[in-house]
Amino acid sequence: MWSATGWLGTLGAADFAGGTAVHINAGIAGLMAALVMGKRTGYGRDNMMPYNLSYAVIGASLLWVGWFGFNAGSAVGANGRAGMAMAVTQIATAAAALAWAFAEWLVKGKPSVLGAISGAVAGLVAITPASGFVLPGGGLAIGIVAGLVCFWSATSLKHKLGYDDSLDAFGVHGVGGIVGALLTGVFAYGPLSATPSSPQGIVGSWHQVVIQAEAVAATLVWSGVVSFILLKIVDLVIGLRVKPEEEIEGLDIVLHGEQLG
Amino acid sequence: MWSATGWLGTLGAADFAGGTAVHINAGIAGLMAALVMGKRTGYGRDNMMPYNLSYAVIGASLLWVGWFGFNAGSAVGANGRAGMAMAVTQIATAAAALAWAFAEWLVKGKPSVLGAISGAVAGLVAITPASGFVLPGGGLAIGIVAGLVCFWSATSLKHKLGYDDSLDAFGVHGVGGIVGALLTGVFAYGPLSATPSSPQGIVGSWHQVVIQAEAVAATLVWSGVVSFILLKIVDLVIGLRVKPEEEIEGLDIVLHGEQLG
Amino acid sequence: MWSATGWLGTLGAADFAGGTAVHINAGIAGLMAALVMGKRTGYGRDNMMPYNLSYAVIGASLLWVGWFGFNAGSAVGANGRAGMAMAVTQIATAAAALAWAFAEWLVKGKPSVLGAISGAVAGLVAITPASGFVLPGGGLAIGIVAGLVCFWSATSLKHKLGYDDSLDAFGVHGVGGIVGALLTGVFAYGPLSATPSSPQGIVGSWHQVVIQAEAVAATLVWSGVVSFILLKIVDLVIGLRVKPEEEIEGLDIVLHGEQLG
Repeated sequence: MWSATGWLGTLGAADFAGGTAVHINAGIAGLMAALVMGKRTGYGRDNMMPYNLSYAVIGASLLWVGWFGFNAGSAVGANGRAGMAMAVTQIATAAAALAWAFAEWLVKGKPSVLGAISGAVAGLVAITPASGFVLPGGGLAIGIVAGLVCFWSATSLKHKLGYDDSLDAFGVHGVGGIVGALLTGVFAYGPLSATPSSPQGIVGSWHQVVIQAEAVAATLVWSGVVSFILLKIVDLVIGLRVKPEEEIEGLDIVLHGEQLG
Repeated sequence: MWSATGWLGTLGAADFAGGTAVHINAGIAGLMAALVMGKRTGYGRDNMMPYNLSYAVIGASLLWVGWFGFNAGSAVGANGRAGMAMAVTQIATAAAALAWAFAEWLVKGKPSVLGAISGAVAGLVAITPASGFVLPGGGLAIGIVAGLVCFWSATSLKHKLGYDDSLDAFGVHGVGGIVGALLTGVFAYGPLSATPSSPQGIVGSWHQVVIQAEAVAATLVWSGVVSFILLKIVDLVIGLRVKPEEEIEGLDIVLHGEQLG
Repeated sequence: MWSATGWLGTLGAADFAGGTAVHINAGIAGLMAALVMGKRTGYGRDNMMPYNLSYAVIGASLLWVGWFGFNAGSAVGANGRAGMAMAVTQIATAAAALAWAFAEWLVKGKPSVLGAISGAVAGLVAITPASGFVLPGGGLAIGIVAGLVCFWSATSLKHKLGYDDSLDAFGVHGVGGIVGALLTGVFAYGPLSATPSSPQGIVGSWHQVVIQAEAVAATLVWSGVVSFILLKIVDLVIGLRVKPEEEIEGLDIVLHGEQLG
């Protein structure tokens, strides 16, 4: 069977820890779900801030730590490439957290913790495909660009286009994934991915950026179209949305009989 | 001095990371404590759900991550056996969390997060003695059985027998430990524990299950009887229970002058 | 340029993972900030207990785990010295948590979780400079002394001297850092730091304690004086304190537009 992943490999696209296959894929699928399901009842009118900011910070912190295993582990060995993947993950994530907070400070007058942790996730996402290919300088640049672009997509683009993406699956994972995939083609440092059979490795170049863009486009189209079709089928067969009164009562209560502390 | 642990070693019982010595031991001791101390004031009448479900999920998540160190670390080396212990720990835990949630869905009509994390702990407990002996398939089976059996013991057996085991020390750690110890005898894959002096290693067989059952029985009897005697002595000399009015006010306040956030 | 760190190296002071350069430095700078800024509005009158004890425990737990990477990582290799650094970190931290809780029990009548986690942080701080130099017995002694001395400095000395150190930066990090730096000179075990060019390594001795004391004094004076000057300059140029009404409304709201959950 033809598959996007197989085709991406044939393309020569560089994706160290799954930026294309995981984050762009999930981000565009999330956008399709947001479009097919429509907005939450009360969206734009009620307060829909995160339920508990402290929990969000704890969650983002655990995510940050766990991501080291994800990115460095993709080197499949305790070697220099794993170490460099870990270092650039830290650098890009910290840079993106700061970039988002500074952008927020400039645009909204106040930097926020919610902004900083959103930026951190954007940085983690963006460095994922690049993590075994770039040096610290590249990681820093990827983090800064991801923080700024995702700040724009999650706070401005979303409202302009009018979809309700409650956790910014597209604004952070989709857009951050695209930023990371493209910039991997800019900042890739050959020796990190050199092998005896490919002694040059993946080298940042205009040529590589084009390949990365093809991989991004393929993932967006493939995952977007297939997700849209699947969502439509599920909507017809089972139904995607709970009843409005269940939505207002809350899904924790209705579906699980539980209430968050 | 004769000791249960010494005797278990002589038996040839397989217990990789301490299922018998830690979880069955603690589970039966907890049951004895529940029996000797009696029920909490208001048990069966007042709402005694966990204080804060979010904290419970954070705690279970940290436990899950920390357990990798516990089980894989019992290989005392960064080798293949440690890697396999880590893999089967993840597989069994995830399977048990799903099994418990599905059982709950079937029996009570709704799967819950509290059920899923209880199942995860049951899976962690059950895979502990087996973790350096079984392959992924064995881990999957142990997780599923542990999730289902512990769901039954924590939600049905406990009420039938009438003891108040507030954190399911027996229902999850005791019963999950027994499930894991017995199934280690079923699924043990020889090469994982083979040594030059014992080239076959521990192999899953009816013979091994009988040895495991002897180890379980010895632990239950030894720990149960000694715990009962010690609890009775402490009850006589110091007293085990706070006053009813202190129990109603809450031990955090009375004993530590603190209140949870 | 002359720098404290450079001079400390010349001295021959032993500081494995940054007790002098990180904790004493930060602790005395924090004390200067507390002195220059003055007390919080309502200090000594309003309830200023931690906002949420559960969050404090989660934070201290994550700190404890993360610190293993900090101390063991300072061995810059997966070797025996890293393993020993990890072991003594665990021993000292647990000992300090217990020592603080027991001291509290004796002095205030009740041991508290807040006391135990404060003691744990004191132990982590105190073992940091010693972690690659001492054996388990030394770690145990350092933990106990740090727990007791920091209990005294955070609950008694602070009130006697009258400064408002809201997070006990000086009482725990400053004092704990001093305890650890001095006791490194007592308990250092030569073979742990022996190198071909220095086959004896750092050995616990009166001579080494004097060197450690010089390093402590240099750090206190250097960081204290420079911090005081910088704080005064910032106070003059930008201002250090928010307005009293902003302080009462809370900085989360005023500066970040956010409220903790």
